[in-house]
Amino acid sequence: MNLLLLFLPVGVGLRVAGVGETWQFIAAGLAIIPLAGLMGEATEHLAHRLGPGVGGLLNATFGNAAELIIALFALFRGYDEVVKASLTGSIIGNLLLVLGASLLAGGLRYPRQQFNRTAAGVGSTLMVLAAFGMLIPAIFYSLPDVVRQGDHARPHSERLLLEHEVSVGVCLILMLSYVLYLVFSLKTHQNLFNPDAQEGTHDESLHGHGPGWGLGRSVGTLLVATAFVAIMSEILIGAVEHTTEALGLTGIFVGVIVVAIVGNAAEHSTAILVARKNKMDLSVGIAIGSALQIALFVAPVLVFASYLRDEPMDLLFTTLEVVAVLLAVFIARMVAEDGESNWLEGAMLLMIYAILAVAFFVLPAGEGHHRAGAEAGAPPPAAGGTE
Amino acid sequence: MNLLLLFLPVGVGLRVAGVGETWQFIAAGLAIIPLAGLMGEATEHLAHRLGPGVGGLLNATFGNAAELIIALFALFRGYDEVVKASLTGSIIGNLLLVLGASLLAGGLRYPRQQFNRTAAGVGSTLMVLAAFGMLIPAIFYSLPDVVRQGDHARPHSERLLLEHEVSVGVCLILMLSYVLYLVFSLKTHQNLFNPDAQEGTHDESLHGHGPGWGLGRSVGTLLVATAFVAIMSEILIGAVEHTTEALGLTGIFVGVIVVAIVGNAAEHSTAILVARKNKMDLSVGIAIGSALQIALFVAPVLVFASYLRDEPMDLLFTTLEVVAVLLAVFIARMVAEDGESNWLEGAMLLMIYAILAVAFFVLPAGEGHHRAGAEAGAPPPAAGGTE
Amino acid sequence: MNLLLLFLPVGVGLRVAGVGETWQFIAAGLAIIPLAGLMGEATEHLAHRLGPGVGGLLNATFGNAAELIIALFALFRGYDEVVKASLTGSIIGNLLLVLGASLLAGGLRYPRQQFNRTAAGVGSTLMVLAAFGMLIPAIFYSLPDVVRQGDHARPHSERLLLEHEVSVGVCLILMLSYVLYLVFSLKTHQNLFNPDAQEGTHDESLHGHGPGWGLGRSVGTLLVATAFVAIMSEILIGAVEHTTEALGLTGIFVGVIVVAIVGNAAEHSTAILVARKNKMDLSVGIAIGSALQIALFVAPVLVFASYLRDEPMDLLFTTLEVVAVLLAVFIARMVAEDGESNWLEGAMLLMIYAILAVAFFVLPAGEGHHRAGAEAGAPPPAAGGTE
Repeated sequence: MNLLLLFLPVGVGLRVAGVGETWQFIAAGLAIIPLAGLMGEATEHLAHRLGPGVGGLLNATFGNAAELIIALFALFRGYDEVVKASLTGSIIGNLLLVLGASLLAGGLRYPRQQFNRTAAGVGSTLMVLAAFGMLIPAIFYSLPDVVRQGDHARPHSERLLLEHEVSVGVCLILMLSYVLYLVFSLKTHQNLFNPDAQEGTHDESLHGHGPGWGLGRSVGTLLVATAFVAIMSEILIGAVEHTTEALGLTGIFVGVIVVAIVGNAAEHSTAILVARKNKMDLSVGIAIGSALQIALFVAPVLVFASYLRDEPMDLLFTTLEVVAVLLAVFIARMVAEDGESNWLEGAMLLMIYAILAVAFFVLPAGEGHHRAGAEAGAPPPAAGGTE
Repeated sequence: MNLLLLFLPVGVGLRVAGVGETWQFIAAGLAIIPLAGLMGEATEHLAHRLGPGVGGLLNATFGNAAELIIALFALFRGYDEVVKASLTGSIIGNLLLVLGASLLAGGLRYPRQQFNRTAAGVGSTLMVLAAFGMLIPAIFYSLPDVVRQGDHARPHSERLLLEHEVSVGVCLILMLSYVLYLVFSLKTHQNLFNPDAQEGTHDESLHGHGPGWGLGRSVGTLLVATAFVAIMSEILIGAVEHTTEALGLTGIFVGVIVVAIVGNAAEHSTAILVARKNKMDLSVGIAIGSALQIALFVAPVLVFASYLRDEPMDLLFTTLEVVAVLLAVFIARMVAEDGESNWLEGAMLLMIYAILAVAFFVLPAGEGHHRAGAEAGAPPPAAGGTE
Repeated sequence: MNLLLLFLPVGVGLRVAGVGETWQFIAAGLAIIPLAGLMGEATEHLAHRLGPGVGGLLNATFGNAAELIIALFALFRGYDEVVKASLTGSIIGNLLLVLGASLLAGGLRYPRQQFNRTAAGVGSTLMVLAAFGMLIPAIFYSLPDVVRQGDHARPHSERLLLEHEVSVGVCLILMLSYVLYLVFSLKTHQNLFNPDAQEGTHDESLHGHGPGWGLGRSVGTLLVATAFVAIMSEILIGAVEHTTEALGLTGIFVGVIVVAIVGNAAEHSTAILVARKNKMDLSVGIAIGSALQIALFVAPVLVFASYLRDEPMDLLFTTLEVVAVLLAVFIARMVAEDGESNWLEGAMLLMIYAILAVAFFVLPAGEGHHRAGAEAGAPPPAAGGTE
């Protein structure tokens, strides 16, 4: 996979030369994959060194750092649609694609794999709650009557204010939930989430390294990889508008499918690897834990960061995104809660991902974002009184 | 808690003097809390005395009597929005607030609490079915295409008739379900729901009284408390319009949050108390059982009672109410079905309740009720080009 | 039940005489019930003779042959609404009516019945996934913003094309899922789905026949019964338009309730029969397996067959159908996943079925089908001249 690092100079070169924006996008995307992997690896070595308390916190905070960096660049370019789509994409990517591929890969080797019901149950229940928390503003505003009456009942500016108030209130609650979740998983119930931690075998089993990296090497790798991710993200997002136009894609599709796959590739390969070794607790934990972090930590951080811009970002996802995320969390919970898996469950998760990808692919440009629509002359009544 | 009874004369005094409607509302609300507790206590003592059969029936019928009385006063004042919102609020209050506070309170004391999976599973599954039964008219009419075409296709009066037919049909089915549920829980499967009943320890463990009240004291307390609840309800509902205006709240918010909390405070404190004693079966049973009773008994009773008015009440909840109730029943079931709980599950239930409270709080006035909207110039096309 | 075969000549006679279309409809419907039963019986004997591999495949493919034949006749008459409603009806019929009646019938005899959690869990999880797969086009297009903006953003013809592209893509994925499901249930995990298969007792316990039919008798019965089902289906569908008008029913109601009950009557009686014998694995398996087959096999076959017509059929169900199917799959999974059942769970499934039947009954004619509505002057925006 480290061969993909070759795309790093390609991306920079194309950008300096100012040619081939679509190729810049592709090269930057491919280069981020191994960089995100290195960041993850370095974070984990560092966490290992710092012990379960601080280390766990570090791991929990920087686990999705690559996605966060990409999203921040998109945020300050004003591509809110892409930002929100990448949140959606990361969640459904982890819960359908990563989990599905892991269960399939493991299930082709073992007829029936088992994992800790309680841990998977608590994690997936939290994920459902987190998803609902994150989506309530969108559900609230995409409901037909509320939206419709709202358009009539109050001036546009006041309505916008309300949306932001709700989003900020919800983000505070999500952040608080994340803190509680960290207390739960790192302190009061750490045994549930990290059965192998005390034996110190966790690290090696994942990456096959010997005794762990030195402090210097961990910090150095982390800093260098983060810097390069940032550079590549700048190139990726700088070329996103041109690329979507050139390839006839929508911003939502790019966010949901492309950005999410690029940012999650490292987790993806790790989760499959450990599933092939029948370590399903770890495999399921990676997928669900990463999705949880997106909803409870990355999403509110992005909303709060957007207050540094002129106009803040809200949490109004498109209805298809709402449906996709709810679908993903419910299905992941169904598959996880019995503590058993087989190849068909994995295959079905991938099928659902494929069906959602088809839906996002055909979602016509400009239809995606609920608010965008609501502003662009949408309130159907405006179409004239001939009815 | 009985100190709150001091608000009883305050409420009456203010009402007689005809001043301070907002203070009347607050005093009446606070006074109802201990009165509802007394009613519950007296009912239980009476039930204990009458034996499991008749007593169980009594308990099941008068368990939510305070909510029912408040709702009846609102019903005959024509505050349908408040009535329906109090149903919604009672259900989400029991399943998110009461259950969440109980799991949190218990979970802070015990790292992992267990309860009977089968009982909690059957109860929470029934609750999902009951919620869908109660909500099907609302789901049916809030669906975009049905509503939209319906506005065009048939005259207003006929459409109203239809709504009432559906509501009555559904109420009959809900009532029948309730009868079946009573047969199930009091007769054919009583052991499942009432593990301690045969030992007669149920009562004492709840309230710490000795051998139970005499028949006279039970009946007397029940009658007096009911009379005072009725008086306070009259004051509460009489002041609701003024109060919502004065405080800038909507009828829905008052119904969902205020009325529901006032009516459920007694269950609330009992459920937390027994959770602290690690009697999770009882604690979970109170929350789910009370919510079940609202959906299967109180809701249809109110609809049937509304036929004594000029225009009957329907079961068309707002879409936010539908989302909130469905969310609550699914989440309660997820948390209950594994027969285990921890403090984080409790905290997450409270978070979801907080997020829903935010949503109900910002729900703009006049947008709340689907039908109200649909009548008030809503069929969006009719709005003409004024937008 | 074979007495119902007497309606076969009645139906043919009325049709030849060209009188009493409503009676033709009723006679044909009643005659199909035993014919579908005979087809099922013959298929099973044949499957038993051909061994688990080919036999299982045969059983899986022709298990819902009667529904498929009825639906094909409706398809080529252009009654798309009835076709899709019969898919909906078969799924909710199997998961609510058949499963509910089985659990009730069994539960009245045994206080608590048990079945294999893993098998029921895998089957019902697959069913949820299958339902979402089948419904995603409908969910996608019934979402308020997508539909509304879509009407503006692109010409009608292009929008239609898109709907068909999505439907075909989804059907291919569903078909592939079905093939994977057959591999899973007939090959890699056959022991899970067919615990009694190896003992060869399956057959007799079902029908009480001795050693199974001969090859000739099986094939002969199958061919004759299929031919008669086809004839009766032609009469049934030929009279459906007249009947719905005469009885004041909608096509959707006839499809969801009548056609689905007629087509599933055989499974229905078998499932109840074995539930009374406490063979819950088989009973639950029939209901869930049949519903799975409808979503993953019958639905895509019908869509592909529709390409032999001038205009293909899409998979855009009405929103009430979407709600009903999702409700049914979630509830069936809840009831099935704990591996236990009681009479109240059965009764509640029947209650939900009754409430849905009420909703479908009052669904006003012409409002049912989302696209039908969208074309018939409905899209409020289309009322302007810009379309």
